[in-house]
Amino acid sequence: MIEKVPALAQLCKELQRVPYLASKNLYRVATYFLTEKPERIAQLCKTILAAQQTIIACPICCVWKERNQPCVFCDDAKRDHTIICVVETWQELIAIEKTEGYKGLYHVLGGAICPLEGIGADDISIKLLLQRLEQKNECKELILAMNQTPEGEATAAFIARKLKDSSLKISCLARGIPVGSQLEMMDKLTVYKALSERRPF
Amino acid sequence: MIEKVPALAQLCKELQRVPYLASKNLYRVATYFLTEKPERIAQLCKTILAAQQTIIACPICCVWKERNQPCVFCDDAKRDHTIICVVETWQELIAIEKTEGYKGLYHVLGGAICPLEGIGADDISIKLLLQRLEQKNECKELILAMNQTPEGEATAAFIARKLKDSSLKISCLARGIPVGSQLEMMDKLTVYKALSERRPF
Repeated sequence: MIEKVPALAQLCKELQRVPYLASKNLYRVATYFLTEKPERIAQLCKTILAAQQTIIACPICCVWKERNQPCVFCDDAKRDHTIICVVETWQELIAIEKTEGYKGLYHVLGGAICPLEGIGADDISIKLLLQRLEQKNECKELILAMNQTPEGEATAAFIARKLKDSSLKISCLARGIPVGSQLEMMDKLTVYKALSERRPF
Repeated sequence: MIEKVPALAQLCKELQRVPYLASKNLYRVATYFLTEKPERIAQLCKTILAAQQTIIACPICCVWKERNQPCVFCDDAKRDHTIICVVETWQELIAIEKTEGYKGLYHVLGGAICPLEGIGADDISIKLLLQRLEQKNECKELILAMNQTPEGEATAAFIARKLKDSSLKISCLARGIPVGSQLEMMDKLTVYKALSERRPF
């Protein structure tokens, strides 16, 4: 039926490119765009276009910032400039910021090394991180806060190897049982890691 | 961090209104809008705005159609005009069309009766359906193809009650074990319905 209504087919085709709108949700989002007030849709489109014009990655840490505005982290003297937390994407950065327990700087890689998807070390901002660490003598500790996935761990290992001769303290997130979880429900690898990386009480 | 980059905050706020983009996915979609080629984003926005201008609900069956174009169903003489299948939304219509096993007409209600969400019989196109059935003597059978949810069943019951004095044949979809499923994995209500509504072999 869709292919017989060209404007609808075009809408669905374009929406298909947006991530996390696959299959079933696609039609629901299309319905939203067709039924929402025109001024609201115009506003959404205006905002998206403006955001693309205004927002750039900070040339130092790669966190989103507004063009001609200071970086929320790099240009904030109140943050601890001796520690840099490396994350895969800004979604992880937000998760860490939510804890309100970290006051250092960040470095957003823009992904993780994944040979299967053709993402190598040069496709994410590892080189920029290494340059930054060379130029910036302030930094004393690097936290590798990658996701606990094969790609995240490979990326962390790659960065750690590159820095093995530096005097930097390199750390990574603790692995273990999530707060509020029952041992019974966890996979055995998590339980094993929690056991072998146990901490003093 | 987001609230300190106003253009990013605005983007996230606007995207939050789009259904099925809640929480985690929101940031990933925002990333897509910030990193995709500008011409592609401009094209997406153009398509959305054009779709809202061009696509309307057919005044008879409420299926999406292009303004000034015939309805894919109502205006197709090859479809069986003696049978109307009532669905909640066009997503269900697409699911039925995919079977290629139905050649009749449709009526899209635009939702289901749900008092908890403040959706009453007048908020969906039931009145239009009843008018259509009164005016259109061709129709002989009405299939109530609502979802198997309390709301869907309440809506079907409401429509059936409204039509109890008409000579129309009213039917609904068969309930039972999905094709390819194992009995063991089904919930007991489905198994009960499949048993009590068993059919001759």
